[in-house]
This record gives sequence, C-alpha cells and structure tokens, in this order.
Amino acid sequence: MISKVQIKLITSLQQKKYRNKEGLFIAEGPKVIAELLTQGLELHSHYHINLQADDSGIQEISEVLLQKISCLKTPNTSLATFKIPTPKPLINTGLTLVVDAVRDPGNLGTIIRLCDWFGVSQLVCSMDTVDCYNPKVVQATMGSIARVAIHYLDIHQYIHQAKVPVYTAIMDGENVYNATLASDAILIMGNEANGVSQKIKALSTHQIAIPQFGDLHATESLNVASATAILLSEFVRTTEM
Amino acid sequence: MISKVQIKLITSLQQKKYRNKEGLFIAEGPKVIAELLTQGLELHSHYHINLQADDSGIQEISEVLLQKISCLKTPNTSLATFKIPTPKPLINTGLTLVVDAVRDPGNLGTIIRLCDWFGVSQLVCSMDTVDCYNPKVVQATMGSIARVAIHYLDIHQYIHQAKVPVYTAIMDGENVYNATLASDAILIMGNEANGVSQKIKALSTHQIAIPQFGDLHATESLNVASATAILLSEFVRTTEM
Repeated sequence: MISKVQIKLITSLQQKKYRNKEGLFIAEGPKVIAELLTQGLELHSHYHINLQADDSGIQEISEVLLQKISCLKTPNTSLATFKIPTPKPLINTGLTLVVDAVRDPGNLGTIIRLCDWFGVSQLVCSMDTVDCYNPKVVQATMGSIARVAIHYLDIHQYIHQAKVPVYTAIMDGENVYNATLASDAILIMGNEANGVSQKIKALSTHQIAIPQFGDLHATESLNVASATAILLSEFVRTTEM
Repeated sequence: MISKVQIKLITSLQQKKYRNKEGLFIAEGPKVIAELLTQGLELHSHYHINLQADDSGIQEISEVLLQKISCLKTPNTSLATFKIPTPKPLINTGLTLVVDAVRDPGNLGTIIRLCDWFGVSQLVCSMDTVDCYNPKVVQATMGSIARVAIHYLDIHQYIHQAKVPVYTAIMDGENVYNATLASDAILIMGNEANGVSQKIKALSTHQIAIPQFGDLHATESLNVASATAILLSEFVRTTEM
C-alpha cells in the first residue's frame, strides 16, 4: 500500500529542485527499471500494478494511482525511484561530448542513448542544459543513462582547460566527411534554436559541419539529436575502425 | 472573426479520417507556415494573434481561442490549414527511403527532415505508418514535409517490384561502414519496437547494421530516427562525395 507521503515524494520528483534535495529520480516501465538495476543503480522504491508471486520487494499500486503519479501520458505498468548516482571523476582521454544548452528532454535522452551506443563514456552538459534526471530524459534514454558519466559544469571553463582538440558543430564549418577527427577529442553540440554560443565557439580548435545534399535554398538545420548521431558516427568510424 | 464552423473543421483535422475527407492538414507557427507557403502549398485558411497592418489575407484569432484549437502544448502565434498536395509520381532512381510501421509522429517528422537534408526526394511509408499529415509530424518536419514526396503504399508489393538493391537495417546485418552502398537503392527502416517485419526483410538484397561500440552487453538498439540519420549519412557520403 502506497502512503500519501510516498505519493507526495514521487510527484515532487518531477521538479529538479526536489530531485536535488532528495537525491532521487523517477524511472518508469519494467524495461527501463530492469536496465537501471542491471547497471547497479540503487533502488529507493518500486511499484507495480498486478503483482506476481515472485515480485518480492515491489509494492502493489492500482492502475488509477499509477496514472496519477506517472510522468507519462500513457503510464506503463511500473514506476520506481532510484538514488541519483555520484558523478564519476572526469577523464581526459577518448571522445567527450559537450552539449551547450540543449533544452528538449527528448533530444538529451536520445543524445545519451547515442553516447552509450558509440562508447562515448563521458557527457558534459552546460548548466543551462535540461536536467538529465528529468523523467522525460530518463525515459528517452531507455536506461542507458546509467552507462554514461554525465557532468553538469561551467563548460566555458571546462573547454578552456582542455588539452585535446575541440570540435564545434556549426552550419558553415568544414565538411565533416573530409575532416581529420582525433580519437582524444571534445565535440560540442549546441542549443536547438541558436546552436553553439559565440563564447564557446571561440574556444574551439576545429569547426565542422554535416553537408547538406538537398535543396540548398532550404534554410533548415538538422535536429540536434540527428546531427549528434551523424557526428558521433563519423568520429567513431574514422578513429576506431 | 473565426466562426464555429471553422473551429469545428480545424479541430476535426487532428483526426486522419477528417484530414482525408476534407483534403486538408494543420500547420502551426510562422516559421513552418512560411516554409510551406514558399514551397507552393495551397493555403486554405490562416489565423494569427495580434494582426499587423501588412497581414493581408490572415484572420485574427484570440490567444485563448488559438490555445483551444492548437495541437501544441504551448501554442505558437499562428495556425493555418493547407490542402494536402497530390502525391508526385513514383521515381525509380536515386535513394528511396522506406519506413515499415513507424508509429511515433516525432520519429517520422525527424525522418522526413533527414530526407530533405540529404536530398532523398522520395519516402515510401507502409500503410500502418503514422500519417505524415498528423499535426505532430508536420511540426517535427519544420516545414520540410513540402520538399519530400511521401507515398503510402503496400510496401511488400512496392519492394517486390523494385529493380534496385534493397537494403534493410537490422541489428545483426553487415557493418555499414564496410558495406558497398548503391546510389540507386532502397533503404528500409523498421518499427520502433519490432524493427523490419520478417516478410519485408525476406525481400531485401542486403542487410546492414550500425556497429555498437559501447558496452556490448547492453541490449538496447538505437532510436529509429538516429539510425536513419546515420544510414542516410553513410549512403550519401559514400555515393555522392
């Protein structure tokens, strides 16, 4: 039986300030929850509708109540809260992805999933990037959030001190397919509407772009998650293969 | 002044059956609307809050009413209805992207935007793919929907009759970075949860995959829009450059 205090705690975790205060975040659905457990994240509470006999340690919850506390439009069958893990120490080797003010939870979630796929073990987010423990981000990562070390930093300071090549993705950069990419490097992706900020761009050593092959009169850019997919593919293809 | 009949018409267009009946679809926001107008789509109605003097042909709408008829959580400043264009004839050259039962509007919208970017002028969707004139798809394309010829077909029949190499994206296919890709080809991407269906896979001449570089115990796949971004990048990079 879930208490009123528990309900209040869970719904409060939809807000960043309460996630930080409690040190907890929400994950929904058996697949995402199982993935986080496999990765060794510390479970705080676990609720499931229609409990089976072997569901020890899980509390039953009614569908109506799950609907009430869920962050999803179409609630899954389970919801859990996990402790926010302590960030791992920063590393200086390999490819680090930096995001500058990515605001859309779906985009950040997809980017985390891409880091996981391509073995990019470190993601650095500017302080004004959407919180990675936002429930929508957690869901979009499909559990891969537990396999990528995510840091929220003053990225200006971080990049300023970097001792590796710094690549910025901008519209009029060098054609990435012709560029020489380094295996120890930083790649910076910018905000959905404004791209990488001027002061961050000024710190980069290389500026790269994905060439457009369609109607060149079209002014649109690629979605930041699509652009990240292609650039990570290029980094990994040319440096790891 | 917007009439009750107009309001009823617009809200009905959130449903596919009324879009097909009326031959109309909704676009929201000045940027998307301007892009569709530039591409020559036929405007049916156009509403804007706080009309300016030069907004001829546009009807004023109150913010409250726009909120009511909008399909967006955070309504923009304008909404328009356009006539659904007549599909262009199918072509047999270049790269054609086929999607097999893609269900998420955001994914299809991103895929259409990717086709536009990479100059893939033809997208073929299975009959059970989400409707491309769904308002959420239209918004996610950022207007690029008008530059890609989109066909809804029996894809089994379409692929069966194809005279070009047919590539299917599957988890255990050949490493795409080592594969030889053709410039006249069909690329098939599958459903979010189930991938490409067996009977479609059986018709393919090549099966390709994006290799995973991360923790190989992780069972997750890439999001279909991310995978499409990477595979279109590979087709275009290796055949057009």
